[in-house]
Order: sequence, then structure tokens, then C-alpha cells
Amino acid sequence: MAKLLDESAKGVYIISATPFTDTGELDLDSTDRLIDFYLENGVDGITILGVMGEAPKLSPTESVAFAERVLKRVNGRVQIIVGASSPGTRNLKNFASKMMDLGAAGVMVSPVAGLKTDDQIEAYFAGVVRELGDNIPIVLQDYPQLTNVFMSAGLIDRMFTQWPSLKVMKHEESPGLRKISKLRASEAKGMRRRISILVGNSAMHLPQELRRGVDGANTGVAYPEMLVEVCRRFFAGDAEGAEDLYDIYLPIIRHEQQPGIGLAIRKEIFRRRGVIKSAQLRAPGPVLDADDHKELDGLMARLERKLRERGLATGADVGRRRAAG
Amino acid sequence: MAKLLDESAKGVYIISATPFTDTGELDLDSTDRLIDFYLENGVDGITILGVMGEAPKLSPTESVAFAERVLKRVNGRVQIIVGASSPGTRNLKNFASKMMDLGAAGVMVSPVAGLKTDDQIEAYFAGVVRELGDNIPIVLQDYPQLTNVFMSAGLIDRMFTQWPSLKVMKHEESPGLRKISKLRASEAKGMRRRISILVGNSAMHLPQELRRGVDGANTGVAYPEMLVEVCRRFFAGDAEGAEDLYDIYLPIIRHEQQPGIGLAIRKEIFRRRGVIKSAQLRAPGPVLDADDHKELDGLMARLERKLRERGLATGADVGRRRAAG
Amino acid sequence: MAKLLDESAKGVYIISATPFTDTGELDLDSTDRLIDFYLENGVDGITILGVMGEAPKLSPTESVAFAERVLKRVNGRVQIIVGASSPGTRNLKNFASKMMDLGAAGVMVSPVAGLKTDDQIEAYFAGVVRELGDNIPIVLQDYPQLTNVFMSAGLIDRMFTQWPSLKVMKHEESPGLRKISKLRASEAKGMRRRISILVGNSAMHLPQELRRGVDGANTGVAYPEMLVEVCRRFFAGDAEGAEDLYDIYLPIIRHEQQPGIGLAIRKEIFRRRGVIKSAQLRAPGPVLDADDHKELDGLMARLERKLRERGLATGADVGRRRAAG
Amino acid sequence: MAKLLDESAKGVYIISATPFTDTGELDLDSTDRLIDFYLENGVDGITILGVMGEAPKLSPTESVAFAERVLKRVNGRVQIIVGASSPGTRNLKNFASKMMDLGAAGVMVSPVAGLKTDDQIEAYFAGVVRELGDNIPIVLQDYPQLTNVFMSAGLIDRMFTQWPSLKVMKHEESPGLRKISKLRASEAKGMRRRISILVGNSAMHLPQELRRGVDGANTGVAYPEMLVEVCRRFFAGDAEGAEDLYDIYLPIIRHEQQPGIGLAIRKEIFRRRGVIKSAQLRAPGPVLDADDHKELDGLMARLERKLRERGLATGADVGRRRAAG
Repeated sequence: MAKLLDESAKGVYIISATPFTDTGELDLDSTDRLIDFYLENGVDGITILGVMGEAPKLSPTESVAFAERVLKRVNGRVQIIVGASSPGTRNLKNFASKMMDLGAAGVMVSPVAGLKTDDQIEAYFAGVVRELGDNIPIVLQDYPQLTNVFMSAGLIDRMFTQWPSLKVMKHEESPGLRKISKLRASEAKGMRRRISILVGNSAMHLPQELRRGVDGANTGVAYPEMLVEVCRRFFAGDAEGAEDLYDIYLPIIRHEQQPGIGLAIRKEIFRRRGVIKSAQLRAPGPVLDADDHKELDGLMARLERKLRERGLATGADVGRRRAAG
Repeated sequence: MAKLLDESAKGVYIISATPFTDTGELDLDSTDRLIDFYLENGVDGITILGVMGEAPKLSPTESVAFAERVLKRVNGRVQIIVGASSPGTRNLKNFASKMMDLGAAGVMVSPVAGLKTDDQIEAYFAGVVRELGDNIPIVLQDYPQLTNVFMSAGLIDRMFTQWPSLKVMKHEESPGLRKISKLRASEAKGMRRRISILVGNSAMHLPQELRRGVDGANTGVAYPEMLVEVCRRFFAGDAEGAEDLYDIYLPIIRHEQQPGIGLAIRKEIFRRRGVIKSAQLRAPGPVLDADDHKELDGLMARLERKLRERGLATGADVGRRRAAG
Repeated sequence: MAKLLDESAKGVYIISATPFTDTGELDLDSTDRLIDFYLENGVDGITILGVMGEAPKLSPTESVAFAERVLKRVNGRVQIIVGASSPGTRNLKNFASKMMDLGAAGVMVSPVAGLKTDDQIEAYFAGVVRELGDNIPIVLQDYPQLTNVFMSAGLIDRMFTQWPSLKVMKHEESPGLRKISKLRASEAKGMRRRISILVGNSAMHLPQELRRGVDGANTGVAYPEMLVEVCRRFFAGDAEGAEDLYDIYLPIIRHEQQPGIGLAIRKEIFRRRGVIKSAQLRAPGPVLDADDHKELDGLMARLERKLRERGLATGADVGRRRAAG
Repeated sequence: MAKLLDESAKGVYIISATPFTDTGELDLDSTDRLIDFYLENGVDGITILGVMGEAPKLSPTESVAFAERVLKRVNGRVQIIVGASSPGTRNLKNFASKMMDLGAAGVMVSPVAGLKTDDQIEAYFAGVVRELGDNIPIVLQDYPQLTNVFMSAGLIDRMFTQWPSLKVMKHEESPGLRKISKLRASEAKGMRRRISILVGNSAMHLPQELRRGVDGANTGVAYPEMLVEVCRRFFAGDAEGAEDLYDIYLPIIRHEQQPGIGLAIRKEIFRRRGVIKSAQLRAPGPVLDADDHKELDGLMARLERKLRERGLATGADVGRRRAAG
């Protein structure tokens, strides 16, 4: 079993999709291939059952089945974080405990919708942290574009100071570059212990976020190899090289991150790369039409061309390697 | 078993709370008493597992257990509608089917959050209606204060025209008086069949809504006897008498309908009236403090005094009658 | 000239409508009558150019003309507060200064839309307070239903502690009863000076708010005589008598407070009471239709009947008295 | 004077910033330079007093002064569109008329906040179009990220069909690629006349939008030369070349488009390029800090390096040419 999540989390914790068949059944064979794909590409951890994992559309039985399959496939090689956000704290607790028993390294929790002031948000998490106890490491997900709950750097400082079970700040407010600097400044002043900050939001500002002090990415693009290599170069001291690579992928990253349709695009890319069998989302969810496909053809072809021009491995190569593997 | 829900639904379909013990366990004994209380007060139907029923905080197992208990206790005397809204259509369908198999008369569905334009809303319900098939009667819940999804009268006309399985419009937009008139005008012009319109939103405008043509209430105040008697008087031709009675209760209705804390107030009134054992909500949820209790003391005492002054049965009497029962 | 606004503000600061002619011109004759009407009914102050005053639909020239007319008519008999909220601090400052020069007792400021965290809200008001200087008394408007900006009691404490020019908290969050208790508790603990708290939100919970410690009302119902008498009774020690009177008016207060259409209803009541000549709102704004008028007929008739039954002066009497006066 | 705006609008209609001095005064000398800069870079039109122009923070006198200065400087060489959105239709009309009298080619109007259903949006614009009359060409701004008003393609079809004075659809919903295809499909089916569609939203998806049939851009990046050249190449048949150029700028376009701080970044780039004297925004507004400046240094240096590597003119060259000019 992988060790529990702590403040040393660093690198790429990919957010995993949940593969379905064309008729919407959980596709556990594709799940295996997807997990293998992530591992082959060198991720440091995998977060399952997040927003991108369509978690709220799974039945509880399916969620457990999916988590079990992933944990079994990974078999302790990297840490698995499980999204556990829930409208009720009791359900959250029960699910989180079950996931930890199955071997998860920690859980990811975002605030329930409707929280407004700093006090309300703090009170909510106080309840969650108390309920989860000291032994379940928590990734605090800060994704106001989705939850409409906004956490200031000061509030995050207060919460991480109070509760040792908070380990990782998943930062995906946008814009949010200044917030990273503020959080690191709090540490520089000795206001609280150093925490891990991983960025989400489709990595739309990853090079700038790395320069401002984040420890890596916790997001779910369809080209995980880029996230891994960008982080590798950056932490090896080659910030410009990291950004050069990133910029090649930026056009498609920008295309992928479109709210709503973005996940359908990502699943289609995974499908085209030979990783999952069907690009199906569960309803309600978008289905790509002919225009969307043609557009994606163009963007993928452009990416491959640019990678080839620079002598870099292309997504197609990765696909071929997988097929050959 | 009660007959299936159809467009003739009329009177009071009370929205039921879900009783918990002080430690947050499902309290099925209190559930029996609560259901008896509703029936003794003359409701025409009961909607369970709605927003007021804290449905998203129950586990699926608990939801089924609660529904089974209610259906057994009611034993076909009135129609039971079950809230089935869910982020995913597949879960919605599975749960709705199970509820119908258990003897529900229909299900209540509200749109998922995030739908914006008329087209998006219509497309969402097209998917739900197709999935549920022809044999599950649907209450369309229109509660934009909660969902942030706004449906125009024209859109509602279009949806009820297309889909015969939509039977009841649960109207709780606020303000929404004109919408009722528009919906009834569409029927007067022969644009579509007559549907049942029941009002929610804590019955804050019930007398005006009845005068504009609604068929009754589908909401969850802690004084169901008032809703029943107001509707009885109104449909017996005594609109002024109905409103006179209503106005006596309005101060506490207004107090009860406060978003967030309202449900805690209602459960406390049920507790004080001897109906449920604990006023507990599941976390995250408010707990009344000393000021809140004192305030409620005052409002309940005022209501009883006003009822007594007019020679009407008071909540306390109902409580006593129940205790004696 | 009336003295400047300070923390002793108490009683009824009515929010004034802005009368227009049927063609949408500023109606300054009706303005005089409306101001006289407020004064005859015993208000302690008048707030002009707030949300209810359709301020954003006036041209700057019209705003100044309207304010001048009101200030001249009042002639120092009560304090005049002027709504000065603006997207830009510079415009806010210029307008506020002009209003103070004309004789206003203070200005009302609400946060700009889009502020999220406590820090953002505090930073915004820091800028406004600095810009306005020490000599312009400020009513802090807390109306999240409109602005979507939520201020916790703790934040309000911090802001009033820092900035002496904040004098009055206009409380209209809903639900907000607990917030009042929290604010008064801060004072009881000596955390900051006692401030004036006046409630808005159409006085929907006025009796409870008075019992929790507010100093009066700062809202704009079409029956100001009720607000004045309720506050008079309450501060004379007759809380129950105050609430008895209030409850008679509650059905129409509830009708008036409907977002969107509420102002059209209020202006129509003022018109019917002989106070203003036209019920016109500036576009875009609702126009009452035949159903709305008939509904209002009923509610006004019911109010008059209930007042007569209790031997109280009716709105009609006030109207007649005015016509005779 | 330039001809009035019509459905043939094509190319780059840049959205202009409004330059201020360090103390927040309108800076009309910088305005001249900014306008010259836009013209030298080959824009086809200029939109002033939009969101990016900080219009709501100007006084009416300043708005007129700014518009006069721009119109005089441009002197009919390109079309000037003026943002005229306003909470009240009367103010909107008066301002729009004045702008047309001064020589504007048309006005841009976005819906007021708070409109929800298709019906409400249509009713709002019906009022605006009626008020503006037949002779004021209108750009319909569709920017739901700001207004929270969402317009479906079907609604836009209906509105453009009804009202000939609507000429240009400023499309900036995000994601919105499918909406463009739908709008063009309506035309292909002969449902309505062909309209001009220009894209906003910081041109974040410009190459894809062009391929889906838009006529150009109506947005305000700090590198207008890129927008002009991308459109030129695309309409000359070189879609791939257009996108190659675009991709070089994408990293900084993505950086510029950050809500809130984006305008401060743009003004700073204009300042660095020698176009405006101060990067000042009016309060409330962000001010770049040392980290922000350093980050921008890096992004601008990277852009210049990439342009040089490809033998393209850099921003610095444009600046030098201006200084020399």
C-alpha cells in the first residue's frame, strides 16, 4: 500500500476520468488501461471520483467498484486520492472511511455549495475535519468556478493552521496566481507549516503557477505526459524549457478546459489515443458532433506536427507504444 | 395502493420532513408519528425525500428504508410522491423505478443546476422524460431560488404539451403570481390540456395563488392543518374565509420560510407539537440557539392566542389530541 | 439643516420612491407630496436614491435635481440620507460630496457586485472610506439578495471598529435574525462602540428584529404609518402591541416585498392613496396588469376591513386626511 | 464620417481601453496615442466605453469628452462603436443618440443583469430596440460571464429576425464554439439574413471561431497587430498560418484574459509598449505588484524571443517604430 498523503505531495497527481461503455455502463477494462496509461506516463498520484470523474452520476455501488478496481490495478505504486465531497457530512465520512480502508492515501473535499462568508466556510470544514478524525489526510479543493465558494488566502492559512489533517491545497481558483504567492508568503513569515499546493483548473497557468511556488499539478488533461515532463523540467531547474514544452500543448489545453464540453473532448482524446474504448459521458452530458470532431482533428494534428517539428514524442507515438506494449 | 398521480391532483400534498434521532440516525418511529399527523390533519398526498426531507444527506439505503416505511404506514390511503432529482439521469431512473415498484404514485424532479437557456432546460427534461418512460408520473418542480434554473410559462407550456407523463407543476418561483395566470391562460386558449398546479415556496402567497387558479399546495409547513383548511374553505367558495384563516398563520409561515434555518424551525415546531422526538438536522445544518428558541416561543404563543381569540383549534390542541389519541 | 447622521439613529428612516409622470419624466410635484406624506406620518429620516428610488435609471442631472427638491421640501426637519453606491469610487465620492454640500445628513453605500471574500469586501470599503474622508457619515447597506456580497457579523465588527465614519448598519440580509444578535453581542462584550442598526428587506421580520435589538427600520413600504407606530409602541415598551399592529399589515407587506414587481405595487398603492400622480416605473420595469390590480384591490380592501374592525385609522383615512389637509 | 455599422462588419474591431493619469484623471493625450496605435496596426473599427473601457467608472461628462476625442482623432477613418449599456433604457437612449450625433457608427448593448428566461431577455431588447428607433445600428453583446444572462442561438435568431437595427452579434459566451455553428446554420437554412458575428472573450478561441464562421474579432488584447494579422491570413485562405501566428501569442493572451486583473495587465503592456503613459485603473481596481510585474516580464520576453526566432516583428519593434514615428 502507498503511504498516506502528507504535505510532501509533489509532482503530478492526475485527475482520472471514469470510463463508460457506449451504453453508459462502467467500463472496468478501459479503467485498467487508463490507469496503466497514467502510470506509464509517470504520474506521482491519481485522484479518482472527482468532478472530472463524473462521481455524482455513479451509484454508491459503482463508486466503490471503480475505486476497488483502480486501487487493485495501482497496487500501491502511487498514491490514490478519492473525491469524497458530499452534501451531507455523514455520507462523506462513511464513504471516506471505506475508501481509506480500501487503501486510499487520502480524500479530496470541496465545500458544499451555498457557503458565503469566511466564517461559514470555516464552520463547514470544522465539521468535516472533526467528523473525519485525525487519520484521514485531506486535499482541500478550492474550485470556486464550480462551487461558487470563495476562500481567501487568509482563510486557507487559518484552516491549515488549525487542522493537521489538511495536507494539500488543490488550488483552482481563476485567476489565482496571487493567491499562490500569498500562501507561500505566509509560510515564509512562519505563520504556518509548509503545505503542498497542487494546481487544478486544467493547468491553464501551470508555468506561472510553478514559478510562484506550487508543488505540481492535480488536474486531468488528456496529455498527462506533458504535465509530468513540465514538472520534471521545472523542478530540475529548467523553468524556460518547462514553459517551452507547455506552450506547445497550450492550444489544446485551452480547448480541453472549456466548461461543460471539456470532459467530452478529453474522453474523445483518450479514445483516439487508444486508452479507453468509448468517449461516452453519462447523461446529462454533451456528445461531440461532426463539427466538434473536425475541430479536434485539426487541433490534434497541429499538436502532432509541432511536436514532430521539435523532435518530440507525439501523442500518436504514445498511443502506438501502448498498442505495441 | 393509491392510484397513480395525474392531472387531477388537488388539495394539500404536504412535503414531509425526515426525522432523525439526536445522534442523526433515521428515526422511523417518529416517521410513523409524523405520517399519522399528516393523515389526521387531512392531507391529500405526501411528498417525501424532497429538499425539506434532507434527501441528499441520506444514503441510498436509508432513502429506500424511509420510503418503504412511509409507504407501509400510509398503506394506500393517500398518494405518495417521491423526490427523485439527481445529478445523473441513470441514478434518477433507477431510484424512480424502485420507488414506483414500492407503491409511489409519482416522482418529483427538478432540473439539475447549471441549466441556463430555455433550450438547455427543455433538452434536460427531454432526456429525463425519455428515460423514465410513459408510466412514471412526474411532478415538475420549478424552484429557481434553489436551482438557479428559471423556466418561463412558455417553456412550461411546451414541456407539458410534449410529454404526457408530466402531470403536476410544482410552482415555487418567487415572485410567481403572474406565472400562474399565464399558465392558466394557456389552458383557457386551448393551447394544452389542463394540468395540476400546486404551490410550494412555503405557501407564502397561498391565498393569492388560489385566487389565480392553483389546485392546492405542495409544501411543508409545520401547521398542515392550516393548509388543509385554507384549501377546503377556498374550494368550498369561501375565499375570504380561507384568507382570514391563512392570515392568522402568516407570521409564523413567514418565520418558517427563512432559507437555511427554516427547516430547523419546522422540525422544532414538530417536536414541540409532540410529533417527532428530535428536531435534529443532519450536518451541515443549523441548530437553534437560545435566542432562536425564545423567538419561536413568542411566535407560537402569539399564534395560539390569536387562534383562541377566534375560537379556533390551536396547535396545542392538536398536540393534546394526538397525545390523547 | 438637520444634524449629521450618527450612531444614535433610531426609528423609521423611510426609503423613498422616485415619482415619475406617465411618460417617465421626473415628477417633482408628486415628490413634494410624497415627502409631505412621509413627514406627516412621522418618519425620523428619509433615504433617497436607493434601489427603491430607481437611482441607476436617473441621469446625474436628475439625481441632483431630485435631491435638491427633497432637501428643500424637508428643510431640515428630518435627516436625509442619499444612496451613493456607484461602480467607481471616484464617482461615488463626487456625488456624495455634492449631496453633503446640499444638506444631506449622510450617504448610503453598498458594496459593488463581485466581491467575494471577507478580505475583498474589507478592501473595497477601505477604499471608499478613505476616499470619503472623515466628515461624510456612512450607512453601510448589507443587502446580499441584490449585490450577492455577503458580510459576516465578524467582518462588520471589524469594519465599524476601524472606521468611525461608518454610523449605521442597514441590515437586510435574509435570513438575518441571528446576525443582529451577533452584532449586539459584540457590543455587549465591549468589542466595539454601539452602532445603529436599521433593518431593510421590506420589514418582513420587523417585530423579531426589534426584539433582537435593532434601532428601527430603513425600508420603503407603502404604509409608513405602520412602521412608525410599530417602532413607537415597541420603544414605549409594548412589544406585543407593536407586533399586533404589524401582523395586520403583514399580508400586504409580504405582497409588496416581491422582488421585481414589488416596487410597481408600492407605487400603485401610493397612487391610490393620493400621494403620487402616476405609478410609472422607468424602463425596464414591470407594469401591473388587470390581474395584478384586482389582486391588489383585494389585499387593500382586506387591510382596510381589518383596521376598521379594530377601530384603527385606515390607509383610506390617511388619504382623505391628506386630501382635506 | 465613417458609414454606419451594418451586417458587413468584418475584421478587427478592437475594444479600446480608457487611459488615465497616475492620479486617475482622464488622459486624453494617451488616448490620442492609443487610437493612433490601433489605427497603425490596421484595425477595422474601434469600440470604446465597453467593459474594458471602464465605462461605468467615468462620469457622463467624461464619457462624452472621451468619445469626442476619439471620434475627432479617428476622423472617419474607421468605424467607432460606443458601449451604451445602462440600467435604464432612457439613459441608454439619450447617450446613444448623443454618440450617434457625434459620429459613432453604432452602439453596443448588453442585457441588464437579472434577466433569466428567453422571454425576459427578448422583452428587454424589444424595449431597447423600440426606444433606439430604426437609425441606430446595434451590436448585441452576449457576454454571460459578466452579465449572467444567457442567450441561446434560437433566441438570437429570433431577435435578429425581428429587428433590422441589430447588425452585429458580439459573441463572447464561453464555451461558445457550437453557438457560432448554430447561428451560421440558421443562415444556411435561410431562416434569417446573414449577420456579422465578431468574437470577444479576449480571443481565447479565435482560430476555432474563425473556422466556424465568424467575421472577426471585437475584443481588446494588448497586441492588436496579432488579431489583425490572424484575421488577414485567415480571410486570405491561410487558416493554418493564421493559427500558427495566433499560437505564438496564446500564452500571453491567456495571461491577459484573467478576469479582474486582466485589464491591469493589458494597460501595463500598453504602457511598456510606449502607447499610454500610465497603467492606472480607476478604483476599485487591481494594481500590479512586484510578482505580477516580474511574471509579465517573463511572458513578454518569451513572446519577443519566439517572434524573433521566427523572424517576425516584435512588440518592441512596434514600440520603437512608434517612438521613431
